[in-house]
Amino acid sequence: MSLTGHVVLLRLLFAYKPTSFLRQLSSTSIWRSQSPKLYSNQPLNKSKLPLNWGSTKYKPKLRVPFYAMADDKIEEILGPLRAAVKEQGDLVRKLKDAGDELETKKAVVELKARKKLLEDKELELTSKDEDFDRPRMEDLLKRRFFYDQSFAIYGGVTGQYDFGPMGCATKANFLNFWRQFFVLEEGMLEVDCSILTPEPVLKASGHVDRFADLMVKDEKTGECFRLDHLIKANLEKIGKEKTTAAETKDRISTILSQLDGLTKDEMSGILVEFKITSPTTGNPLTEPLEFNLMFSTLIGPTGLVKGFLRPETAQGIFVNFKRLLEFSQGKLPFAAAQIGNAFRNEISPRSGLLRVREFTMAEIEHFCDSSNLSHPKFADIKDTVMILYSACDQMDGKRPSKIPIGDAVASGLVANETLGYFLARIQTFLHKVGVNPDKLRFRQHMGNEMAHYARDCWDAECLTSYGWVECVGCADRSAYDLNQHTKATGVKLIAERKLPAPKKIEVVQANLNKALVGKNFKKDAKAINDYFAALNEEDLLEIEKKLASDGAVEVTIGQATFKLGTDILTIGKSEKTVHVEEFVPNVIEPSFGVGRILYSIFEHNFKIRGDDAQRTYLALPPLIAPVKCSVLPLSNKSELNAFVTQVVQQLRKNEVSVKVDDSSGSIGRRYARTDEIAIPFGITIDFETVKNETVTLRERDTTLQVRLPIDKVGLTVRDLSTGALTWTEVLNNFPKFESQEA
Amino acid sequence: MSLTGHVVLLRLLFAYKPTSFLRQLSSTSIWRSQSPKLYSNQPLNKSKLPLNWGSTKYKPKLRVPFYAMADDKIEEILGPLRAAVKEQGDLVRKLKDAGDELETKKAVVELKARKKLLEDKELELTSKDEDFDRPRMEDLLKRRFFYDQSFAIYGGVTGQYDFGPMGCATKANFLNFWRQFFVLEEGMLEVDCSILTPEPVLKASGHVDRFADLMVKDEKTGECFRLDHLIKANLEKIGKEKTTAAETKDRISTILSQLDGLTKDEMSGILVEFKITSPTTGNPLTEPLEFNLMFSTLIGPTGLVKGFLRPETAQGIFVNFKRLLEFSQGKLPFAAAQIGNAFRNEISPRSGLLRVREFTMAEIEHFCDSSNLSHPKFADIKDTVMILYSACDQMDGKRPSKIPIGDAVASGLVANETLGYFLARIQTFLHKVGVNPDKLRFRQHMGNEMAHYARDCWDAECLTSYGWVECVGCADRSAYDLNQHTKATGVKLIAERKLPAPKKIEVVQANLNKALVGKNFKKDAKAINDYFAALNEEDLLEIEKKLASDGAVEVTIGQATFKLGTDILTIGKSEKTVHVEEFVPNVIEPSFGVGRILYSIFEHNFKIRGDDAQRTYLALPPLIAPVKCSVLPLSNKSELNAFVTQVVQQLRKNEVSVKVDDSSGSIGRRYARTDEIAIPFGITIDFETVKNETVTLRERDTTLQVRLPIDKVGLTVRDLSTGALTWTEVLNNFPKFESQEA
Repeated sequence: MSLTGHVVLLRLLFAYKPTSFLRQLSSTSIWRSQSPKLYSNQPLNKSKLPLNWGSTKYKPKLRVPFYAMADDKIEEILGPLRAAVKEQGDLVRKLKDAGDELETKKAVVELKARKKLLEDKELELTSKDEDFDRPRMEDLLKRRFFYDQSFAIYGGVTGQYDFGPMGCATKANFLNFWRQFFVLEEGMLEVDCSILTPEPVLKASGHVDRFADLMVKDEKTGECFRLDHLIKANLEKIGKEKTTAAETKDRISTILSQLDGLTKDEMSGILVEFKITSPTTGNPLTEPLEFNLMFSTLIGPTGLVKGFLRPETAQGIFVNFKRLLEFSQGKLPFAAAQIGNAFRNEISPRSGLLRVREFTMAEIEHFCDSSNLSHPKFADIKDTVMILYSACDQMDGKRPSKIPIGDAVASGLVANETLGYFLARIQTFLHKVGVNPDKLRFRQHMGNEMAHYARDCWDAECLTSYGWVECVGCADRSAYDLNQHTKATGVKLIAERKLPAPKKIEVVQANLNKALVGKNFKKDAKAINDYFAALNEEDLLEIEKKLASDGAVEVTIGQATFKLGTDILTIGKSEKTVHVEEFVPNVIEPSFGVGRILYSIFEHNFKIRGDDAQRTYLALPPLIAPVKCSVLPLSNKSELNAFVTQVVQQLRKNEVSVKVDDSSGSIGRRYARTDEIAIPFGITIDFETVKNETVTLRERDTTLQVRLPIDKVGLTVRDLSTGALTWTEVLNNFPKFESQEA
Repeated sequence: MSLTGHVVLLRLLFAYKPTSFLRQLSSTSIWRSQSPKLYSNQPLNKSKLPLNWGSTKYKPKLRVPFYAMADDKIEEILGPLRAAVKEQGDLVRKLKDAGDELETKKAVVELKARKKLLEDKELELTSKDEDFDRPRMEDLLKRRFFYDQSFAIYGGVTGQYDFGPMGCATKANFLNFWRQFFVLEEGMLEVDCSILTPEPVLKASGHVDRFADLMVKDEKTGECFRLDHLIKANLEKIGKEKTTAAETKDRISTILSQLDGLTKDEMSGILVEFKITSPTTGNPLTEPLEFNLMFSTLIGPTGLVKGFLRPETAQGIFVNFKRLLEFSQGKLPFAAAQIGNAFRNEISPRSGLLRVREFTMAEIEHFCDSSNLSHPKFADIKDTVMILYSACDQMDGKRPSKIPIGDAVASGLVANETLGYFLARIQTFLHKVGVNPDKLRFRQHMGNEMAHYARDCWDAECLTSYGWVECVGCADRSAYDLNQHTKATGVKLIAERKLPAPKKIEVVQANLNKALVGKNFKKDAKAINDYFAALNEEDLLEIEKKLASDGAVEVTIGQATFKLGTDILTIGKSEKTVHVEEFVPNVIEPSFGVGRILYSIFEHNFKIRGDDAQRTYLALPPLIAPVKCSVLPLSNKSELNAFVTQVVQQLRKNEVSVKVDDSSGSIGRRYARTDEIAIPFGITIDFETVKNETVTLRERDTTLQVRLPIDKVGLTVRDLSTGALTWTEVLNNFPKFESQEA
């Protein structure tokens, strides 16, 4: 296919693209990294850009907080990139105002590509000093069994991980705090719904039809490849070859930048154009196929009831809406929450915990009346300073803003108090569990990223060695899901709001002569009465017409048809005073990807001791550290044993988790081992203990130690673990102790 | 088929029965209620029995604790039943000693039937006074959304339940306490493994081949019926009909009592004999089919990797054994634990939460050296008085024993300290979470109930309106699972124990001339070296023979075959001093069915107020109550609001969960509502509060109230909730307050 032909094809791109799918664009977007596009009606003028502008090589280092970047030299380099984004952003706005939908969409593709260039350059320039060594961190996490591949002795399964003792304890602490922070503190209704979900539920939510990725198969072996990954890998390889013509390299770079926006047919064309075959066998490939990402199974023995493993926990909450509203005594707003596993049959899982087939989510569905989105506790959090990257700033090539959430809501940057309240709470939560505040931002979806029904969506993104990773989505999902389930089941999922003043309305109803119905239709009388009682106004008016013209109407109920004349049925109208009106609640959904957040926390807290490059450790906050305190007898002489038992019992009584390490290694070596598994506090029992009943207490990050009476360790470590006491206070209260570590 | 023919067929019964399957006989038995059999070579002499001996109608009432039963009249009735059990028990022992396997098995069937008669009669006679109204309890649980059927607005799916806010909070509290009580207090290694499990893992564990139930299908509609349920329902119906001949009734009662022991062919014969057809259509039925109870799916897009939803959590621990042993620095014993969901595709789920398709388990695998099963903390629990129903006592028709666990281990009733320790800890746990001690017993599996590799197995059984329900299994599973996974993968799942004295052993090894290997085989050299390094002694001796006779040996590695002569390969023997020996650890497995325990707790704590039959409530212990404290302003006058906020904040600061009910109902009505959802403490804010800053505090079970200063509520309710303070102490510390409830 010629380049011109390809461009023509591209002009049709958006016309063929299916309507954006809800879960891919709101909470699904948590699981998909976006890469931008370069194809455009307005290609970027490269001559205006600085050297190396196109380098997207990731440098996993960060010199200064990204939002605080104000270095003149850096801004000099970024300036043209910022201007290029703004230029395109303005074009998008103009086209949108002019109502030119097709051209707008194309301009957005180019806008995203320019944004990506800016962001990559920004990361490259601001990531010079800090070292992060992913393989070493992964080695630690694997060696100390935080997590590792599932079923490894059977060869393993990609995209599935088992959490070992340390990972599991960290995760359990994380989830307990989540429950404390959100469910208990906000009085949310936590539920625990089924994972196995019958097909009709996910048909209604849209997942059966649209939750799919494109793949191709090896025609002979049947091996499958995710289409975008395959094209990317092939073209990158061709692009790097010396023999490849400059023109082809240019074409490849254009395709790569635009890959996410291509249709099935366009990708198919690229396969042909570059003669792409199976990377493992060289065999020809099939046409691209849509592969639904849900795991299917059959419920019950008949083989007739199809079900899926839920791809998200949210639907369990929506289908329980009526019960939950009732539990809230009919009052809005209320929030339901759920922690649980979800499953996605990724074609080719990768990036460790970031894209997996089985994962834990923690989701909140806040049901509210969209006519009043104020929040009673907004005043409590209004001064929380947030790093917000609005859609508007993204289009203008600007940096994110550091701004109190109160100001952001007041200025309209964040749409309303309820959304603002959740954003601030999410940030506070993430800070407390150990996300580095300098590597966290809230990025608003641009109009084109959102599903058609969404009012607004902000993602909490963490900066990791894989780039910015969406960890929490916070979407205003409007009334979409409740409407869909109502349509599918006929069960009204609605709430009532009080009218400002009572209102008179006209009510249309069917008046049946019940005596005659009973006489004429006998055993069918009840079905007939029920049928007419359930009809809506529109149907009734239709029947009224029919009665007027024909003097009778025929209705089919079940297998039988009944004829009713005006002697037995009339349609009446009456006036009624109502004090409330029904409405379908609006939903605001904060959705947490637990594995992604944990991974980010591991990266943000992976450290190397300044004085010893061999000693790596995890500086997890005590709140989520898997074990709070180690107990290390200096030797395994029996006279120390009683003290070990005494300290352990005291700690456990205070609900402090403990690990005793009475192995024969030096204290220094044993501390290094406990540092690796993030134990924040350590108690050493030595021969002084026998003499005067004191022990040393050491803090992991500072490695400083104090000496304190043995009967004070329980409460002291408990308060340190919960945050009721700081290490500085401990240093002030007890004499410093010079380390036995040396 | 004639009765004689049937009996002949029965004599072959056990010969055709597949080897008992592990999970059906140990942890699986948690999910299966057993019903006993009457078919026998030694039928019970009914004339010796009291009237009504055969009535198995369940009376869900309990007059006196079952183990304390000593009423003369009752024992007079039970005496002959006890004697009948003992008679058969002695016969079983005799046949077993004589080594007559077939006759033993048949005698056991009869023994079980007699035991069942005794137990049913026991329950009937001792359950007269206490009222338990299951429909009313179920109404409360549904109405206040503790749990309810999943996807109800879509018609629901049988065997799947959603936990609503109150059920979910109860379950979360239950699991947190489980983690505190077992994982933290015992220093267990908690893991969180994948649910989706590839086929080879479950092939090795035996689930793929043997985890099945029998069913039949409607030949025309394909509707499925669980075979034993279908036969039972049909025969019970026929048995009740007046026109049925006495002889047939007798025959039916015999079949019903023996149903669980019948083979596929025998059940097929019964279908023909009684002309059983589809209960819904009357159509003919297929031959019985084996239906595997695991949900299957395909992992990845190729359609080639088959997987299952795990039917238990245990296998995830076994396949991680090596990592866990390493985490324990190679030391035994250690225990791993896991809380998670498991799935079983029941043919026809029923009995509410007791038999479901998706459920939460909490399992412990304690890995130990079977040559030393003492327990370091046994002394701490040795005085725990347990209700133990040993296999021996069951065979003798005796009552369970109430006995300290120390004595039970000393006498050999319980095999060893480790098992005894777990049994005592399980009991203490169950008591603390609200299981009625009078409705809990530990029943030992009889020899024939256990899988062939099991050393011992005790079930914690709770008495409910469905009869005795197995809630926790505690099995000594020997080394079965680790051996199976080693066989399937070649990965040695072993530990080392120190030898009492160093030992000299002969080691056989392959001596390769590495230079020649490199020269002759080049790129294959490494594969060849690895191949010979991995061979076991047996293989090496085989090769030695071959080399001696042929002067060379051919080996196939991958696709290629290599010939090695004696110039390049010799088999050598050397002596080595070893200090340790390898062994496959033994596993003791306490396995908790969370839904079953929760259900039993709901039953045991469902109460009706003595003075008001309309008022039902749940007397859950504060430890697991979904919400600890309610706050009720006496009126919604604004002057009370500030106090409500103050009390709520104080409680939350003390981590006490709170529910505010500021609706307009009377205080009494609101207390009734909070009692229904098991809230143990309630604070009322009234107009006195405004005057003197005091509030009332009410306890749910006694309905007594005290008046206390508002600034004391936080700590007081916290300590009441954790058990640090008793209600009696509160009554002594603060003035009593006469109720506003009236």
